[in-house]
Amino acid sequence: MIVLGIDTALRCTGYGLIEVQGKRFRAIDCGIIRNPPKAPHSECLGKLAGGIGQLIEQYHPDIAAIEGGFYLRNAKTAMVLGMARGSVVSVLARHDIPCYEYAPSRAKQAITGHGRAGKEQVAAILSGMLGLNVSQIPDDSTDALALAVCHVLSARGHQGIYLKDPL
Amino acid sequence: MIVLGIDTALRCTGYGLIEVQGKRFRAIDCGIIRNPPKAPHSECLGKLAGGIGQLIEQYHPDIAAIEGGFYLRNAKTAMVLGMARGSVVSVLARHDIPCYEYAPSRAKQAITGHGRAGKEQVAAILSGMLGLNVSQIPDDSTDALALAVCHVLSARGHQGIYLKDPL
Repeated sequence: MIVLGIDTALRCTGYGLIEVQGKRFRAIDCGIIRNPPKAPHSECLGKLAGGIGQLIEQYHPDIAAIEGGFYLRNAKTAMVLGMARGSVVSVLARHDIPCYEYAPSRAKQAITGHGRAGKEQVAAILSGMLGLNVSQIPDDSTDALALAVCHVLSARGHQGIYLKDPL
Repeated sequence: MIVLGIDTALRCTGYGLIEVQGKRFRAIDCGIIRNPPKAPHSECLGKLAGGIGQLIEQYHPDIAAIEGGFYLRNAKTAMVLGMARGSVVSVLARHDIPCYEYAPSRAKQAITGHGRAGKEQVAAILSGMLGLNVSQIPDDSTDALALAVCHVLSARGHQGIYLKDPL
């Protein structure tokens, strides 16, 4: 089974692909889809949808895990983040890839046992699990890999984190 | 020139296509992309992106006009609407179709001269402009047709409404 984790944002979206065989994980790819700071929204959304589409065609993931469950106070920020999420989720849906969402704290808890663990700690444990050097994980794709691993652990009921319905 | 107007929402997205030749308008198609009330978000977003993609393949619009510029207070509502907008705008961007946004009041003003005109009044004027019977315009696509016409009038500086940068 191949799981695609996506940490979505308009300007900088991290992704991480892992392969799961029984109890073993392996990192397949991770990286960032980056948009220039001043690029128009439509250009960013097109590039985001195109980038996720390319990953799907290259690696054929079975399942996706995205960041979610956060509560934003600012409606304008929520609108922009919503647009980025919409471009990503619509591509996943068009390829019939079920998409699960996890709060950032859930992903951290699933991996380290603590919902407030720091990014370095998450990256250190992930690199051990996935057979990577920490230096091979770009900073902005740590959360994406964590989301992918979190999904697999949740599906197993690890750390009391169980599977919810897909998005 | 063919303009695609889109009044985006997760459950019920109205669309309207108009053809412009000189000073004359003609309605090409209008209708609704509807999602069941309880369908998961991912299914709705996939259907929305797919529906807009089909319209693009069928009619090859040159430009799109979507509803925008409103200020939502509720971040959760903004997130859901943002996701619907993101799925639509990313498809337009992938097809290199520039996308302009207009506030609902701007569209009403461009067509009727009043930003607070009722839907019936907008539909009555639109039907005259586009050579349609009012009964041929489904309720939820009035705003979409209005957005398309508003874009053309704005590009001509009609009613003091000028063209802004695309989204």
